[in-house]
Amino acid sequence: MKFYAILRHLKTLGSPYVVQSINRTCISSFSLTTCTGQLKYDQKTDWGKNKKHRQVKLRVFLDSMADPAIEQVLAPLRASVKEQGDLVRQLKADGAPVLDVKKAVLELKARKKILEDKELALTPNVTFDRAKMEDLLKRRFFFDQSFAIYGGITGQFDFGPMGCAFKANLLQTWRQFFVLEEQMLEVDCSILTPEPVLKVSGHVDRFADLMVKDVKTGECFRLDHLIKAHLEKIASNPKTSTETKEECKDIIIKLDGMDKAEMAAVMNKFEMKSPLTGNDLTVPIEFNLMFATQIGPSGLIKGFLRPETAQGIFVNFKRLLEFNQGKLPFAAAQIGNAFRNEISPRSGLIRVREFTMAEIEHFCDPNDKTHPKFESVKNVELVLYSACNQMSGEAAERITIGDAVSTGLVANETLGYFMVRIHQFLIKSGVDPSRLRFRQHMANEMAHYACDCWDAECLTSYGWIECVGCADRSAYDLTQHTKATGIRLAAEKKLDQPKIVDIVEATPNKAVLGKEFKKDAKYISETLANFTLEEIENLEKSLETNGNYELSAADRKFTLTKDHVTVKRCTETVHVEEIIPSVIEPSFGVGRIMYAIFEHNFKQRENDEQRTYLSLPAIVAPLKCSVLPLSGNAEFVPFIKQLSSDLTKVDVSHKIDDSSGSIGRRYARTDEIAIPYGITIDFDTLKEPNSVTLRERDSMVQVRIPLKDIALVVHNLAYSKDSWSEVTKKYPKFEQQESKI
Amino acid sequence: MKFYAILRHLKTLGSPYVVQSINRTCISSFSLTTCTGQLKYDQKTDWGKNKKHRQVKLRVFLDSMADPAIEQVLAPLRASVKEQGDLVRQLKADGAPVLDVKKAVLELKARKKILEDKELALTPNVTFDRAKMEDLLKRRFFFDQSFAIYGGITGQFDFGPMGCAFKANLLQTWRQFFVLEEQMLEVDCSILTPEPVLKVSGHVDRFADLMVKDVKTGECFRLDHLIKAHLEKIASNPKTSTETKEECKDIIIKLDGMDKAEMAAVMNKFEMKSPLTGNDLTVPIEFNLMFATQIGPSGLIKGFLRPETAQGIFVNFKRLLEFNQGKLPFAAAQIGNAFRNEISPRSGLIRVREFTMAEIEHFCDPNDKTHPKFESVKNVELVLYSACNQMSGEAAERITIGDAVSTGLVANETLGYFMVRIHQFLIKSGVDPSRLRFRQHMANEMAHYACDCWDAECLTSYGWIECVGCADRSAYDLTQHTKATGIRLAAEKKLDQPKIVDIVEATPNKAVLGKEFKKDAKYISETLANFTLEEIENLEKSLETNGNYELSAADRKFTLTKDHVTVKRCTETVHVEEIIPSVIEPSFGVGRIMYAIFEHNFKQRENDEQRTYLSLPAIVAPLKCSVLPLSGNAEFVPFIKQLSSDLTKVDVSHKIDDSSGSIGRRYARTDEIAIPYGITIDFDTLKEPNSVTLRERDSMVQVRIPLKDIALVVHNLAYSKDSWSEVTKKYPKFEQQESKI
Repeated sequence: MKFYAILRHLKTLGSPYVVQSINRTCISSFSLTTCTGQLKYDQKTDWGKNKKHRQVKLRVFLDSMADPAIEQVLAPLRASVKEQGDLVRQLKADGAPVLDVKKAVLELKARKKILEDKELALTPNVTFDRAKMEDLLKRRFFFDQSFAIYGGITGQFDFGPMGCAFKANLLQTWRQFFVLEEQMLEVDCSILTPEPVLKVSGHVDRFADLMVKDVKTGECFRLDHLIKAHLEKIASNPKTSTETKEECKDIIIKLDGMDKAEMAAVMNKFEMKSPLTGNDLTVPIEFNLMFATQIGPSGLIKGFLRPETAQGIFVNFKRLLEFNQGKLPFAAAQIGNAFRNEISPRSGLIRVREFTMAEIEHFCDPNDKTHPKFESVKNVELVLYSACNQMSGEAAERITIGDAVSTGLVANETLGYFMVRIHQFLIKSGVDPSRLRFRQHMANEMAHYACDCWDAECLTSYGWIECVGCADRSAYDLTQHTKATGIRLAAEKKLDQPKIVDIVEATPNKAVLGKEFKKDAKYISETLANFTLEEIENLEKSLETNGNYELSAADRKFTLTKDHVTVKRCTETVHVEEIIPSVIEPSFGVGRIMYAIFEHNFKQRENDEQRTYLSLPAIVAPLKCSVLPLSGNAEFVPFIKQLSSDLTKVDVSHKIDDSSGSIGRRYARTDEIAIPYGITIDFDTLKEPNSVTLRERDSMVQVRIPLKDIALVVHNLAYSKDSWSEVTKKYPKFEQQESKI
Repeated sequence: MKFYAILRHLKTLGSPYVVQSINRTCISSFSLTTCTGQLKYDQKTDWGKNKKHRQVKLRVFLDSMADPAIEQVLAPLRASVKEQGDLVRQLKADGAPVLDVKKAVLELKARKKILEDKELALTPNVTFDRAKMEDLLKRRFFFDQSFAIYGGITGQFDFGPMGCAFKANLLQTWRQFFVLEEQMLEVDCSILTPEPVLKVSGHVDRFADLMVKDVKTGECFRLDHLIKAHLEKIASNPKTSTETKEECKDIIIKLDGMDKAEMAAVMNKFEMKSPLTGNDLTVPIEFNLMFATQIGPSGLIKGFLRPETAQGIFVNFKRLLEFNQGKLPFAAAQIGNAFRNEISPRSGLIRVREFTMAEIEHFCDPNDKTHPKFESVKNVELVLYSACNQMSGEAAERITIGDAVSTGLVANETLGYFMVRIHQFLIKSGVDPSRLRFRQHMANEMAHYACDCWDAECLTSYGWIECVGCADRSAYDLTQHTKATGIRLAAEKKLDQPKIVDIVEATPNKAVLGKEFKKDAKYISETLANFTLEEIENLEKSLETNGNYELSAADRKFTLTKDHVTVKRCTETVHVEEIIPSVIEPSFGVGRIMYAIFEHNFKQRENDEQRTYLSLPAIVAPLKCSVLPLSGNAEFVPFIKQLSSDLTKVDVSHKIDDSSGSIGRRYARTDEIAIPYGITIDFDTLKEPNSVTLRERDSMVQVRIPLKDIALVVHNLAYSKDSWSEVTKKYPKFEQQESKI
């Protein structure tokens, strides 16, 4: 077995050749990431002859081996985090004052950050040149700043033909993977949202960042960015005392957890002014991140551009439940744009003002969060970075989702099932599995209504970035909207056993009420109808004891007697109970996922650093195929037309490049836009039996294929119905060198 | 030939059996629409045996036959339009005062409307019950009002699972049909647009409707709607004099063409007050239809939600041209949301505040608007309602696009090519060809920059509604953005013959300039470099005559001599010239198309008016297939699971309905949501060889198919790779009656 032989060999070499991870997208090929780069193996072609052995499952013990030299460096940092984590736990257990706990948590975060930064710095990584990648993405118009000819606005991007096609394919894959496979109910809701909806969801009051303004020019600064830049400047000044430097660094680390008053104190202490004008700054202001507008001409209906797509699903819950014939569980999904008026957007596609989200809201019985398909995924392993490990300074761990759920690390099967599906989707779309982890929210960062929350994070040159959130939002949103509208967003659950319940009702005598209270009678009846059990019992008691009951409502009082109202008691057999469903929410940031995929697939050719390309998986690649005539020879033209028509018929998107560059140069150009397969029409194509060459982007291997077969071959490759290794076995290799550019 | 035999037979029957149109989506099947309904024929099954005959092109002479009885009624109305059209032409030819022409055009429009209303009233139409259709669409949540639990806002709709899937399939079909087949460059641009962009495009100044406000409550009314309602009320009052009634009717008809002053005069004359409160109204105000917001926290950057997607393409023109390697023609496309703050939205999906558009901008040489694929479509016939026929009171005509372009009726090949593609796309997606026409804009309604414009209009219960606009926008937009930004949005065109041009340059002597003017030297050099020919010649003359030249720039003056600057003359051979491309723009209103398709496909079962269904073509149907177990028998469960998995593998979206209703009732339910195919699992399925029944929605015919074949059969049907008639030939008919609900 060549595979194991290589692994054995690597193991004898020890660090830095240790295997960090195995990237295996299908059973027939895999790649090993070692400290010095990637080694690729194709199981079917390179492995011994024993067919049975080819089916071998890769064992994972290889992945979890950590580099002992690195671990030695990290050990004291891990210990430091653990010490602080233990302190936090202790304080909480002792019921220490909130302020003390908060301070300890800030210190814990600071230590975690130091550990994480060190870990990243020590991780041997393939050299990645972000400027080079950005140049490629801009030059080939994957995306670029919007309205650039008008000066542009930060935080807004336009996707060009290749970026747009990549995005469309990614969304189509998502739809296929989630909506169709899981039979979800996809909806498409309004972007403009009236204020009351977002007031109830909490966005009007809480969705804000702190900023300060230049008192003279009105220029705005995001407060945490301003403080960080200011303190970094002080810390880098050689004249600054060591003590002050340390203080600055300490504040920078803790900044993320500081509140308004704490930040204001820092501003005052360091006498911060506008970095642009030197003018005074205002006190910190909470700036709501939603874009406001008026709906309709009167200016009276205030609305916002939605900051997430989820609320559109919640307000349609009743209709969706009805569409699902009243049954739980079911999931609704939505792909759409959302908007956040960031104070100072940056980091390219990662923090923008306008972005596409794909969100799922899975509604289920709060007492039954099992998932029927969980059994089928329970052996899938994920890299989980638990809140506990974060508190203890320990590393993320590889663990099966079955174990994670059974030990209670992941709250329930449904959450676990979706985490696996997110993992599978991201890898299928091109995320490098060795740069993907699930990080659990710590108690202090979780939204107050959530029970458990795991972020799928991708490692990029900006650090670990959250690409998908996966939260159990409990019944929070539906409860809030129910309270606000009076419309019960609830489902009925059939009881295993019919239940006999006591009914207590305050029944108004409408005739008497009407006679005595005239137009108030209706109001009194309605008030009685909404009485809680406790209120009815008070009424009953008061009528018994005092002979009357004083109903106070809306500043008025009505004295009721037994003539006006009777309390009745009876029993009723009920077969259903009303439940407000829990919501499990996987929420995908499409731009961030795209960015991570760009970074994970940006490659340079060996021995030619200038020749960069994107190794996007065929399923999301903007175009599946290129068609390149060897030269401008007129005899090639009918073949180009025929081929283009054949490819269109089998839904293979393609690009014809009949420009004058050499074939090598044109291949390089198609590699840049991630086209996985290239068909070349050459002089042999003109001869009977007509044939063309087909080239695979990553390996640059070419085979010769009959013209009549080619469209179907590419279709099968592009839609994962056949593998490149199968194709190379079936058709003869074509040996012409392409390096002659 | 059975086909011709049928046509001959129909002709002998005369009206009302006359053929209105032929709906042919592929060579193998077609349907004839007659006044009494649709007749369907499948060429392969029903036509003679001669294979060659199957390729026969359908002749269209049959369609253009009009009903003589109807024509007799319309004749005087046509004459009346023609009389007025001739008057307008004459006035224009005589150079009559603008006001006179305008009045005559208003009268022409009024007469046209009377003619059109009469035509519609006389058109024999299948009875259509809009309330019934709306009930279905709401009940099965195709779409419904947004935020209804919060009271909702007019003009905003959410698409539920079926509406969303229909929309997604429609857009996917569009992408396949236009972007992929025509190799367009699809982009995805920002929605939030800074003010300067929309100032230049004309939207800030001109994209407005007239409204009036209640002076006390601030309530707003769209002025034309208000006037219409007010005058209709007066006209319907029995006490109103005949003269006033006529005047009211006359104004209502002319309202569409009135300007602000004319409408204000009407308001005053009839002393209009707020219909809600009786309060006074303000004078008419121009209300801009764009939603305004602030971008960024300072409140200084004003932005709008885009009112169309087109501008995003124009501002990216340079990048797109570069992506296309500098070559013309090319087309860019964009699917996305646009927003219009309608004063009073109505008519369901037709006039809304937030909507999806799909726009194409085809850039080409203004002197060469031929299209390479025009030849392939030139024999396609369209129903064209030309400006000329509208002026003359004549009906729309059926004519080949080849004839329309060669006679100059349609301005150029590219415009004509796109009109055919729009026609084909709409019919493929479910628009009834007998309710589709292209109406040319008359000179007075065309945007001032457009050369020619045709709207694809669909006949609905709201009348003819514009669903797709197809305009030649000339070089207007690119010219405007070039002027505003100074960035030349132009292409280079290779000259047939190299051209020798005189070059005149003002060459600064940088060394001398630098010495004398220090840091201003650079600024002077740059100013000279931007000199126009005229300015250079002035400079030359002044240096010759006065020995110096006074350069004034930015409030300052510099005296230049021959030491500072030399005027050089030379010749240069140029191979290219710069051109600002023309733009042909097909612009699709997705919601309106969906609405027209709903109306055209809403059907009732014969003999059972309550049993309504939607006959959407499989390609756009929300789900392709249903899976219905005959009963809740546990033995069916593994088959349901297997089938669902098999269908998912071949990308067939489906719905499992294992609820307890009878099979007939469940079929009716799937018919309502337009599912074209239904698989039933019954007791025969349990026996070897396992088989299921497959039912087609429109004919309700069922066949028995082996379980192992079924997924592929449905896949081929759903993606137009096989026809139902082929399937019925291959598999035995299943005779069980489904009417037993």
